[in-house]
Amino acid sequence: MVSTKVTVVEKILSTNDRLAGINRQNLSDHGVLGINLMASPGAGKTSFILETIKRMKVNYKIGVIEGDTAPVTIDADKITAAGMPAVQINTGGDCHLDASMVADGLNQLPLDLIDLLIVENVGNLICPAAWDLGTHLSLLVASIPEGDDKPYKYPNIYRGLNVLIINKVDLKPYVQFDMEYFRKGVEMLNPGLVTFAVSCRTGEGFDNWIEWLKHRISLK
Amino acid sequence: MVSTKVTVVEKILSTNDRLAGINRQNLSDHGVLGINLMASPGAGKTSFILETIKRMKVNYKIGVIEGDTAPVTIDADKITAAGMPAVQINTGGDCHLDASMVADGLNQLPLDLIDLLIVENVGNLICPAAWDLGTHLSLLVASIPEGDDKPYKYPNIYRGLNVLIINKVDLKPYVQFDMEYFRKGVEMLNPGLVTFAVSCRTGEGFDNWIEWLKHRISLK
Repeated sequence: MVSTKVTVVEKILSTNDRLAGINRQNLSDHGVLGINLMASPGAGKTSFILETIKRMKVNYKIGVIEGDTAPVTIDADKITAAGMPAVQINTGGDCHLDASMVADGLNQLPLDLIDLLIVENVGNLICPAAWDLGTHLSLLVASIPEGDDKPYKYPNIYRGLNVLIINKVDLKPYVQFDMEYFRKGVEMLNPGLVTFAVSCRTGEGFDNWIEWLKHRISLK
Repeated sequence: MVSTKVTVVEKILSTNDRLAGINRQNLSDHGVLGINLMASPGAGKTSFILETIKRMKVNYKIGVIEGDTAPVTIDADKITAAGMPAVQINTGGDCHLDASMVADGLNQLPLDLIDLLIVENVGNLICPAAWDLGTHLSLLVASIPEGDDKPYKYPNIYRGLNVLIINKVDLKPYVQFDMEYFRKGVEMLNPGLVTFAVSCRTGEGFDNWIEWLKHRISLK
């Protein structure tokens, strides 16, 4: 029974990985850098995207795929209001996006016109870690009020990251958060991980992130 | 293919529901009130349990089952240090506890000696909503810095709740959070839901929660 189950899971993953490869090639063919943006619910993913758009919109076109477990367009509406193309994907209760959902989203975006695609995954520190969407980079937005023990409790998502954003640093004076303990946990899982500490509310730390991102887009 | 998949899922759920019923009977037979405590990562589940223990420990014995996706004992160690029996369950990467894991936990707790069992579920607003653990009450800890749109984005978990705790009210001056919008979303999904606004940091709001909980324990 156990080996049957494992076989089925492997088949699903390999279909996903195949589709992810197609998505990645599709993005690369159009000169689009793709980012899979993950976080807990409420860590500030949408705010982070909006602040990034605000600082790049003069010279860059950014497309966004918004993943939600419910049929709401709260986040996609915010992106559209910021002047960028957005597609809302309802996972129908599923706890993560997969490569086929992202393929659907790519079909609805003007890939020829955009430089950067940000896929806002479902708010969840567990399930999204196991699914390649076909992006080039995986980002996690961690936030100060979530606490400093999250790398120890949700190690899998930290292991697969290319960039870590520590958000809501403006709340540091009001909560217990030991940055050294947090960074030690991250370093054990993902040595040398590129990290930016920011506040979407005050704009603190965004200059460095935007500079890094522009450079990364120029390399694609 | 689709109908085969549906059948399998229904079978798993019905096994879980049967085990959940056995857990509930086991708790009731021992005069234990069982609570399934859910939340996003970092909303303050463990702090909420610790503050509840602090205020009840003179007259009540509280057992805790700690669910984590990784083999860490950070939370269980805190409960034990607070003088109460705790069992750590590692889900092995799974995004929620299930009734069989809780049954294992119950076997390791002195049910004859405890009045209240709190099961701290994995930090996740999606997957835990679908799994009955065999407790009597489902609680959600929402926290102010997560934002006021969570009921709209994660409706399923709000629908099944018996009690809602709004935590970190001490951070309200420092973040954008429209309490009326939040409560309107909750009310649409779960009319009349019993709700307590608290701060685990300052202790604000705990008197009402503890009074309600003691009364609820007296009814079991």
